[in-house]
Amino acid sequence: MATKVTPRSEDYSRWYTDVVQMADLADYAPVKGCMIIKPHGYALWENIKAGLDRRFKATGHANAYFPLFIPMSFLEKEAEHVKGFSPELAVVTHGGGKKLEEPLAVRPTSETIIGHMYAKWIQSYRDLPLLINQWCNVVRWEMRTRLFLRTTEFLWQEGHDAFATSEEAQANALQMLDVYKEFAVEDAAIPVIAGRKSESEKFAGGVTSYTIEAMMGDYKALQSGTSHFLGQNFAKAFDIKFLDENNELQYVWTTSWGVSTRMVGAVVMVHGDDQGLVLPPKLAPIQVVIVPIWKSDNQRTAVLEAVTRVEAALRDDVRVHVDDRDEYSPGWKFNEWEMRGVPLRIEIGPRDVEREQVMLARRDVPGREGKSPVPLSGLAGAVREMLTTIQADLYRRALDFREAHTYNPGDYAEFGEAVSEGFAYSWWCGDADCEAQIKEGTKATIRCIPLEQEPGKGKCIRCGKEASERAIFGRAY
Amino acid sequence: MATKVTPRSEDYSRWYTDVVQMADLADYAPVKGCMIIKPHGYALWENIKAGLDRRFKATGHANAYFPLFIPMSFLEKEAEHVKGFSPELAVVTHGGGKKLEEPLAVRPTSETIIGHMYAKWIQSYRDLPLLINQWCNVVRWEMRTRLFLRTTEFLWQEGHDAFATSEEAQANALQMLDVYKEFAVEDAAIPVIAGRKSESEKFAGGVTSYTIEAMMGDYKALQSGTSHFLGQNFAKAFDIKFLDENNELQYVWTTSWGVSTRMVGAVVMVHGDDQGLVLPPKLAPIQVVIVPIWKSDNQRTAVLEAVTRVEAALRDDVRVHVDDRDEYSPGWKFNEWEMRGVPLRIEIGPRDVEREQVMLARRDVPGREGKSPVPLSGLAGAVREMLTTIQADLYRRALDFREAHTYNPGDYAEFGEAVSEGFAYSWWCGDADCEAQIKEGTKATIRCIPLEQEPGKGKCIRCGKEASERAIFGRAY
Repeated sequence: MATKVTPRSEDYSRWYTDVVQMADLADYAPVKGCMIIKPHGYALWENIKAGLDRRFKATGHANAYFPLFIPMSFLEKEAEHVKGFSPELAVVTHGGGKKLEEPLAVRPTSETIIGHMYAKWIQSYRDLPLLINQWCNVVRWEMRTRLFLRTTEFLWQEGHDAFATSEEAQANALQMLDVYKEFAVEDAAIPVIAGRKSESEKFAGGVTSYTIEAMMGDYKALQSGTSHFLGQNFAKAFDIKFLDENNELQYVWTTSWGVSTRMVGAVVMVHGDDQGLVLPPKLAPIQVVIVPIWKSDNQRTAVLEAVTRVEAALRDDVRVHVDDRDEYSPGWKFNEWEMRGVPLRIEIGPRDVEREQVMLARRDVPGREGKSPVPLSGLAGAVREMLTTIQADLYRRALDFREAHTYNPGDYAEFGEAVSEGFAYSWWCGDADCEAQIKEGTKATIRCIPLEQEPGKGKCIRCGKEASERAIFGRAY
Repeated sequence: MATKVTPRSEDYSRWYTDVVQMADLADYAPVKGCMIIKPHGYALWENIKAGLDRRFKATGHANAYFPLFIPMSFLEKEAEHVKGFSPELAVVTHGGGKKLEEPLAVRPTSETIIGHMYAKWIQSYRDLPLLINQWCNVVRWEMRTRLFLRTTEFLWQEGHDAFATSEEAQANALQMLDVYKEFAVEDAAIPVIAGRKSESEKFAGGVTSYTIEAMMGDYKALQSGTSHFLGQNFAKAFDIKFLDENNELQYVWTTSWGVSTRMVGAVVMVHGDDQGLVLPPKLAPIQVVIVPIWKSDNQRTAVLEAVTRVEAALRDDVRVHVDDRDEYSPGWKFNEWEMRGVPLRIEIGPRDVEREQVMLARRDVPGREGKSPVPLSGLAGAVREMLTTIQADLYRRALDFREAHTYNPGDYAEFGEAVSEGFAYSWWCGDADCEAQIKEGTKATIRCIPLEQEPGKGKCIRCGKEASERAIFGRAY
């Protein structure tokens, strides 16, 4: 950990890669475009999974598992879907030493094979709604990859729900978007804008796509979760029908929704600093690290005794780790745990033992300002409270940052400046040509049309025609 | 659920498939040899995962994730390994619309790609031991498949550990076998025999393979978890070296160990009966189902009130589900929850409400014998206790069954009879020819050479030559 990360101001992209590797989150794989999620990164992903999975189950979802391989003919059943995904497919042509009669795609997403099964499982309105999620790996062949943000293989969850009515399906797509938003805000401390995707950015084969968009430390947007209302497109392609209460055969209405390991990248870029990772307490694999400090052997004994007591006092409440390695100095340990983003450090030295106190050091407030002595009595309560404060402060800081870099440009020239250093929240006439011109001229895309916006009318930032909605524009990962 | 499963005595194999499908554990996929794990089966797998994962973490392991794709050249680096696995590979030849320069195997197991990374990560003795596990999907092309027991794609965990010394690695392989045994006995209520595999049955590329073997309801053996001491075979193939304390470069010693969704099949076959699934309480997604019984609307109100109170009293202690569906009769519900293996049913009718009691019905003791009235006061304690009893009784019953069908045949003729209806525990000279002749003559294989056996000598059951170890022989899945 002697080496330092590239400062963000110098090269944001290198800073990101440095942090991901030096904080031991991930490594490059010997397979093009793939990554290895290392233990620290995977523990973070496990906490992300737990936070989402708990919420999925609370909304009535069960987990299941569908095959990795999808017959090519399935993908071809929905015209838009295959058009969108076929350039990205990995294809298995041989199995068990023989050439396959029909090549198999490695799943890029599972609407098709799940649709095929739903057609078999759903018979009557009593089988609806069908609410199923799957945690799995997917593969999309990528040319330019970045750890966590864009990799050929990634981990995710994909929810696939079927309903008797369009209204229920639409409400579900929005409900799951809301679950994502709640997770991002409450657990990941990431402020997100929930909105609708434009037609050009929506899911291949869907009717309406919703997204949560977050601003990264370099002002770029990261799509952090999507939820799609698929109408009856997949129901018709896969013949998913049910007998309704009047005994009439109807097509179901479906949705799908997903969050991936990309969320790890969002956590890095929203909260990290030039010392490395900064983790929100709710997601941190280790919330509190205890570092003992001593010089003499006598001190060592007394300090380690205190450390044992403190750890025992905290263990039931927080995820605590004691770093009592003899071969590293306290300063070296401070750096390492800062790099790895542990939210709170407890230092215990001989003077602390004498005074019956410990020193708390906040990861999110570097230097002296973030340090405070806390008496041993009532320590567990103080630590819990401090973690709550850190969680809230991280969110507040990220929100302030996004708000400071979200602009309401007065004209197209100002718009160009705005999207080079943040988001532009601007009127858009809804025309795909304007959207394309903006993208070509400024590299900014419509991140979303926010669900919450004041009703009214304005003039399209590009063409000046009347517009009834405002969109968030930004450059994106 | 009107239809019944095929009785075990009529056709065990059909009984198994019926139960797996009718208890909603799994379904056949539209891709050859693959399965879909349905919500009930996946919830069972989630509990298996949780029971194992907790134990892995307690032994110092962290989870990580390595790529799905393995370059063919990696597999070829260990001669025995590629020989063993290449007939079973699924191969990706095209990605992103282009033919790949080097075909990629879909991982059948990950020793090779993990070995490649360990060579990069391990530099010094301070990096050892390296203890990593991964939960993932793997693919082995299979000709004859059976739901959970043998499928082209399956889910599993694979642990991969590296050590400075042979002794540590060997101790680790046995430690993880012990973890598997503890899980099987304590959580799955499955008695297992822990032992060593013969040379002909060991892992391709390993030095010593250990296994836990369980007896299914048809007396056949199911290999339920394996742990391999790999010596320095993979270390040499992938150049995994470390600087020891004397600053000398040494190869590491490695192990690998795995348990798969096959364990679900073991639970079905060890505990199930002609009414369907019987789940051990520790693994059951629903431990207690409450079924209200009423005739009049007045009764309905009083009964449902009692049901709500009972559910509230149990919720914190056990995984409880209330089946208050109006459209099904109590009898229909009894059958359904019996099919799905819920360990304990609570029936609440008008007379129970009057008497301030409920009726408990044990899944593992069918009919009247398994029913007992329990007063509402102290119900939670009684339910917890009953679940503990059921867990213990299931294990005891399975152990009695295995012991009743494990024989000590006096000669080879008796041996042939023994392995047609159980295990034979017999002396074996250690010669591979004897092993092959036994397999050809009786279809029985050496399931394992038990770790725990009385020292001594005897005569090989096949050739009569002196033998110093006894082996468990049986027909296997």
